[in-house]
Amino acid sequence: MVKVGIVGGTGYTGVELLRLLAQHPQVQIKAITSRKEAGMPVSDMYPSLRGHVDIPFVTPDEADLKACDVVFFATPHGVAMAQTPELLAAGVKVIDLAADFRLKDTAEFEQWYGMAHTCPDILAEAVYGLPELNREAIQAARVIGNPGCYPTSVQLGLAPLLRAGLIEPTGIIANCASGVSGAGRKAEVHTLMAEAADNFKAYGVKGHRHGPEINQQLRTIAGRDDIDCLFVPHLLPLIRGIHSTVYARLNSAGQAADLQATFEAAYQGERFVDVLPAGSAPETRSVRASNTVRIAVHKPRPDTVMVLVVEDNLCKGASGQAVQCMNLMFGLEEHLGLNLVPVLP
Amino acid sequence: MVKVGIVGGTGYTGVELLRLLAQHPQVQIKAITSRKEAGMPVSDMYPSLRGHVDIPFVTPDEADLKACDVVFFATPHGVAMAQTPELLAAGVKVIDLAADFRLKDTAEFEQWYGMAHTCPDILAEAVYGLPELNREAIQAARVIGNPGCYPTSVQLGLAPLLRAGLIEPTGIIANCASGVSGAGRKAEVHTLMAEAADNFKAYGVKGHRHGPEINQQLRTIAGRDDIDCLFVPHLLPLIRGIHSTVYARLNSAGQAADLQATFEAAYQGERFVDVLPAGSAPETRSVRASNTVRIAVHKPRPDTVMVLVVEDNLCKGASGQAVQCMNLMFGLEEHLGLNLVPVLP
Amino acid sequence: MVKVGIVGGTGYTGVELLRLLAQHPQVQIKAITSRKEAGMPVSDMYPSLRGHVDIPFVTPDEADLKACDVVFFATPHGVAMAQTPELLAAGVKVIDLAADFRLKDTAEFEQWYGMAHTCPDILAEAVYGLPELNREAIQAARVIGNPGCYPTSVQLGLAPLLRAGLIEPTGIIANCASGVSGAGRKAEVHTLMAEAADNFKAYGVKGHRHGPEINQQLRTIAGRDDIDCLFVPHLLPLIRGIHSTVYARLNSAGQAADLQATFEAAYQGERFVDVLPAGSAPETRSVRASNTVRIAVHKPRPDTVMVLVVEDNLCKGASGQAVQCMNLMFGLEEHLGLNLVPVLP
Amino acid sequence: MVKVGIVGGTGYTGVELLRLLAQHPQVQIKAITSRKEAGMPVSDMYPSLRGHVDIPFVTPDEADLKACDVVFFATPHGVAMAQTPELLAAGVKVIDLAADFRLKDTAEFEQWYGMAHTCPDILAEAVYGLPELNREAIQAARVIGNPGCYPTSVQLGLAPLLRAGLIEPTGIIANCASGVSGAGRKAEVHTLMAEAADNFKAYGVKGHRHGPEINQQLRTIAGRDDIDCLFVPHLLPLIRGIHSTVYARLNSAGQAADLQATFEAAYQGERFVDVLPAGSAPETRSVRASNTVRIAVHKPRPDTVMVLVVEDNLCKGASGQAVQCMNLMFGLEEHLGLNLVPVLP
Repeated sequence: MVKVGIVGGTGYTGVELLRLLAQHPQVQIKAITSRKEAGMPVSDMYPSLRGHVDIPFVTPDEADLKACDVVFFATPHGVAMAQTPELLAAGVKVIDLAADFRLKDTAEFEQWYGMAHTCPDILAEAVYGLPELNREAIQAARVIGNPGCYPTSVQLGLAPLLRAGLIEPTGIIANCASGVSGAGRKAEVHTLMAEAADNFKAYGVKGHRHGPEINQQLRTIAGRDDIDCLFVPHLLPLIRGIHSTVYARLNSAGQAADLQATFEAAYQGERFVDVLPAGSAPETRSVRASNTVRIAVHKPRPDTVMVLVVEDNLCKGASGQAVQCMNLMFGLEEHLGLNLVPVLP
Repeated sequence: MVKVGIVGGTGYTGVELLRLLAQHPQVQIKAITSRKEAGMPVSDMYPSLRGHVDIPFVTPDEADLKACDVVFFATPHGVAMAQTPELLAAGVKVIDLAADFRLKDTAEFEQWYGMAHTCPDILAEAVYGLPELNREAIQAARVIGNPGCYPTSVQLGLAPLLRAGLIEPTGIIANCASGVSGAGRKAEVHTLMAEAADNFKAYGVKGHRHGPEINQQLRTIAGRDDIDCLFVPHLLPLIRGIHSTVYARLNSAGQAADLQATFEAAYQGERFVDVLPAGSAPETRSVRASNTVRIAVHKPRPDTVMVLVVEDNLCKGASGQAVQCMNLMFGLEEHLGLNLVPVLP
Repeated sequence: MVKVGIVGGTGYTGVELLRLLAQHPQVQIKAITSRKEAGMPVSDMYPSLRGHVDIPFVTPDEADLKACDVVFFATPHGVAMAQTPELLAAGVKVIDLAADFRLKDTAEFEQWYGMAHTCPDILAEAVYGLPELNREAIQAARVIGNPGCYPTSVQLGLAPLLRAGLIEPTGIIANCASGVSGAGRKAEVHTLMAEAADNFKAYGVKGHRHGPEINQQLRTIAGRDDIDCLFVPHLLPLIRGIHSTVYARLNSAGQAADLQATFEAAYQGERFVDVLPAGSAPETRSVRASNTVRIAVHKPRPDTVMVLVVEDNLCKGASGQAVQCMNLMFGLEEHLGLNLVPVLP
Repeated sequence: MVKVGIVGGTGYTGVELLRLLAQHPQVQIKAITSRKEAGMPVSDMYPSLRGHVDIPFVTPDEADLKACDVVFFATPHGVAMAQTPELLAAGVKVIDLAADFRLKDTAEFEQWYGMAHTCPDILAEAVYGLPELNREAIQAARVIGNPGCYPTSVQLGLAPLLRAGLIEPTGIIANCASGVSGAGRKAEVHTLMAEAADNFKAYGVKGHRHGPEINQQLRTIAGRDDIDCLFVPHLLPLIRGIHSTVYARLNSAGQAADLQATFEAAYQGERFVDVLPAGSAPETRSVRASNTVRIAVHKPRPDTVMVLVVEDNLCKGASGQAVQCMNLMFGLEEHLGLNLVPVLP
């Protein structure tokens, strides 16, 4: 049994972690911390967990996190990097669901997250936790920067093309849309139901934090620095789900390639990536509450590729992916506890 | 032209007032106050008003409210009663969309709203602004306590029965449901879209402020003190709309009566109350964005009457009713500016 | 391994059955029939099942249903009663998710379902499949009439009161609301999203098929024929979920009783019925995609009890309950394959 | 008063026409036809119209359409072209909300709509009814092909760029999303609420009818035949609203231009086109139930322009635009009856 601690279990990635870990056969949840809610049973805040997670939130001091095998941070940006050094020193592995260990360039981190990075050495060691692209490094990692929700979908949509060198490096467009749970469980006017329901809009149009993460990773995947992807997020009137419509210009190799075969080969054997038959359009509900990503690739013009990707932003886009990383880090079957059939309708 | 001031134009009843008044042919909006947003054009906050309301919010000090004919308060409870004495003294009429002038019993007000009433004399003078039940008093009023959203629907659903003495005084049940805009434009977790969408629940199960308002008014309508209605609100995953399912036991007169005829007679000539044909079930969208209430009366058991009522909580349940009162207070046609066709689908 | 056949796998109860059975450790799905879709892989119709259920629909002739241990009917009313005699004769057990084996009175069945009952002897033998009220009979049954979605919630909400004799037999009101999946996957105008979203209404106001089922069962539970419950369904703008607000008058024993304790005792040890702490209001999302029912009991007046019940209409209200019955019928642990954490948010 | 006939008033563009025309001060609705619903009061089908439109549907034979000044066709494709010749001969003007008079190339029409065009001469005469781009021709027209909902938003978003010659002709991408009312009031499984709510997907990925319409019009606007726009529609889980995110590559003139000023100049004085301040992102609800289009222009890369456009697909995208055309055709003020404040929230 892997002994697990969760720091910050009150948000949506926290409750999703609890949903997944409560159904995981090889996990023991040792502690869930919340400074604010300490003493309250977790299931008082989330009645969905009644009968499944029957422990209370504890303060960070009460939680003996150093006795855990791994600690998940489902916290605001900045919390994980403050506590990780001490945990690592105690032999505890760390998976951060926030952005502390995603951007390798500390200047970029400071620009987008408004704080200096306090442990650049650990950042340098940290592994980007996208198993389909990075499996071996994750298996050996002590610290995981769990990918952002949008970047997961965009990377999985573009990786086969980039690795095979089939597209032009610039002019890539990732036109993405996310459900409101992506904004978290913060009391804010713009995500009130009376504001966000029956409505649709772009946001972050002057630049969004996931833009640099996407470009950093696409450059790593392609192995070239000139990749440029324009990322445009939109807010969907639904709870869970991300849909990415990604456009790129095919180079001459790409125009000649069998794109469907390229994708099928790239993800053969991947349990959580499903390449749909040619001509398909995936829908977000087909992955609801599951760790699966579904992808369809199209060639709407001889020189244009369009990739459609859906994921559940809270599961494969956050907590499911984190559990998948944990499985790899502890030598468990990669899909253990994650073999969930999506909920439809 | 009626010169209008609005105190607190940033909430949903405020923007709904602006939507209605901007289309009203006999109104001039003189000032909209918001201490917090002073200087910002109203249409920056509500782009829907661009081209229709092109004035900025001003501070209460800048707004020369005493030069208005009437001031609407679309504010938290307590604001109107603080400012009304001075306005009345200056000859300005007041319509309060909050609860300051609804409950006649100051002890009850204090119990439910957590503050002492500061002008009981004005409260005594204030008129409850439900035109279909109280038209003449409204025409002569200086101060209007605009009814709560739920109480409007429950009163209109029960008034014909109470006035005709057809039901038992106790055991009345008002099982009601409202869209989330009824909770206002406050940043709170429980009305986030990720919390309230795709969900349904009762709330206020230990008692809700509209309970005493409903019973006060039903007693007034019936002219007897022993009326008791159990009010149970539920939160609907939609933006606008209230649906009330009201049950009462028919007395012997009621069991013999033609209930459909009773309702049709009661509301004959009423422009904003539509009694549906026998056997109907009104739907909230049939009154969306309009000042209309639709009612269906049923007799599911020989001794039981069930009344179904729908209204738009922001319009007839708040701002539309306030404008209707204003029209009456200033001798205008009652439906002026309110003859809106509901938006369906 | 229990060998399972499903007749009519294309509707929502069908896909929910497949979701549950695909995750069940002791089930082997032998055949799914659909005359219309024969030959199409199930996962072409429901991409959510890709990788989990990879068999095609077959015609009823191709399906060797007699080789199954149990056959589920997720079909329109009337199909199960046509095929059940032959299956029973072959030693196959039957669980009907439609209404063929719910109403014991064949005249009542004919009145509400518009067809004569063709096997009254089997109807007489059939067991009403609500395990919390009927466990032993289910264990021994060959044929299960799986309860309707609304009746499940109303019965579980009233059973403790009826068994303890705490309420008056008449004047019971079940004010219920269901998400649109309850209407099934039929192409009909009134359940189009442009009709049903952002809308709320009562329906079936002249009488609904679940009314006689509710009263039959409440009479059985109470052991008296004079029980009368008025059932009023409403259509919620959400996909999954039923919420029942049930009112009854307390008799003198009921007024003296500790209702909270009564409910807790009644459901002690029940894995799928969760009695909430006093003062609670359950929400539909707290049981989303799970087999759990949550109940809160209130006493809003000295002589009135109000019970709030939530369930997932497709799971505990249909397919989950059917799997629970199957587990009992085959001597498996009752919760096998059903220990699902609800999906929230 | 303009005497108006409506053929096919039962769909969503029909009821929206009725909503607008019922509030239009210079219109008299003479007849609404529906072969199937003849005899039924319009307000029985659409209770929202009770008290506003109190006439019944009539058969096409009963309707004396030749006595009208103008007839709107809110019908399936093909109906208008069958009846238009006779109406024109009788001096009646025609506005078709379907596609019969949109595509100028009859082969293209046949390819996309599966029927031969029966009156190519009238097609040649027909005017594309997008007033902001085509005002004078509309004023003089006898027959209007009312634009498709998506094409309206894409054209208004690209016209200033094309007219000023600021973008490359190819590689234009119109990534669009529409609410479900765009699919009409047809009973189909894929637009059931249980299918379309809480879901998002692309559709028409192999080609959509609005693609050729968009390219025909962009070529006309630009005055060059090599324009190519890739149109990708998506289905939004909301009722009303279209959002288009349009990308194009700026040529050298475009890279040097002040795009914000270009758009403001292009739409100066246009009552129904609102160019938002630089840096904005329009939301669909800001135009809900109104005839307004809001546009924001962005330059996310030195060589890339991104235009965001919102409209109400039923109003400016269909019936509102048709009324706007009618106003022009009959010398009325262009905004008469259309000066509606959007409904928000």
